[in-house]
Amino acid sequence: MARIRTAKDVSRKEVILKAAAALFHAKGYKAASMRDLAEMVGVEAASLYNHIRSKTELLHDICFNVANVFWEHLNKVELSDARPIEKLETLLRFHIKQMIENFQEVYISDREWRYLIDPYLSNYQNQRRTYRKRFAAIIEQGIENGEINKIDASTAVLIVLHAVSGIESWHRSKIKVSGEELEENMITILIDGLKK
Amino acid sequence: MARIRTAKDVSRKEVILKAAAALFHAKGYKAASMRDLAEMVGVEAASLYNHIRSKTELLHDICFNVANVFWEHLNKVELSDARPIEKLETLLRFHIKQMIENFQEVYISDREWRYLIDPYLSNYQNQRRTYRKRFAAIIEQGIENGEINKIDASTAVLIVLHAVSGIESWHRSKIKVSGEELEENMITILIDGLKK
Repeated sequence: MARIRTAKDVSRKEVILKAAAALFHAKGYKAASMRDLAEMVGVEAASLYNHIRSKTELLHDICFNVANVFWEHLNKVELSDARPIEKLETLLRFHIKQMIENFQEVYISDREWRYLIDPYLSNYQNQRRTYRKRFAAIIEQGIENGEINKIDASTAVLIVLHAVSGIESWHRSKIKVSGEELEENMITILIDGLKK
Repeated sequence: MARIRTAKDVSRKEVILKAAAALFHAKGYKAASMRDLAEMVGVEAASLYNHIRSKTELLHDICFNVANVFWEHLNKVELSDARPIEKLETLLRFHIKQMIENFQEVYISDREWRYLIDPYLSNYQNQRRTYRKRFAAIIEQGIENGEINKIDASTAVLIVLHAVSGIESWHRSKIKVSGEELEENMITILIDGLKK
């Protein structure tokens, strides 16, 4: 039986998670099977179960890994002594970069989390909601100190995060803009739009 | 057998199309059946076929009806003698209003068109592509005459249209912002972001 090949610094589980993200993105979580995954990794389905217990576990790990990366980044940004508009720019650039460099995982965590099972599902929804509230709070601080246009902060979060998730079609399209240019264009539109 | 009830100024076909849009939105086009639709409309499945030939025909009509509404609006905007930045605002407000008032149809036309069958599929894709090119051309005119920030116009189209499609989560969320406020917030962020 073939063994799961890995580079020295990558665990077998990480190889499987990476493949699962690609598979769930291509086929959708529901339609994807462990057999498909085994084929992608190049092993028998049975040997996957030495590393993971179920398809749900894969979804769980992908979603929470992504959520935790964003969560920790937000912690750092909140603690920094930058101005609110600068914090916002830092957050947005991070979202954009993640969406470009870590696309499949971020996509799954944004679209397929509905298939998580409780209690993880509720935990995940809570974490998402809280993240957005903290994001909105930074916008509100910017409105209060006069740096940011007077708008409804939760709506602004909705607008900018959806604009960022539009990078999905950038991945699919043949538009020849580079990742850096995409990032600068997004920052120009979104941050200038928020600035007073 | 029950007849399809309609208000005097609405055709039976329109009643069926409205129900189909709601059904495809709730269940997804693929999973929805003609039996589901008959149940929603309150008639036997057989009597639906007096008005339409197939599930594909419903998808076709929903997608092209929406596409044509946007297309005709764009024709008018292009012919107006407003400045490019004003044309852009008019276009965006129209997208936002359609997404608020005509949500299910616009959602289907934006997400489920992949299930159209050729030659309609290719026609639809062409129309979508051309629409975006004409939209981008208006941004380019604004960049040339110095009203709009120097950015890649096709990327800008991608960003703003995705921000608008984020209204999907506004429909789902319990955020208590009104449609009007949502529209004004979006225009503030997106148009101010584009303006030089």
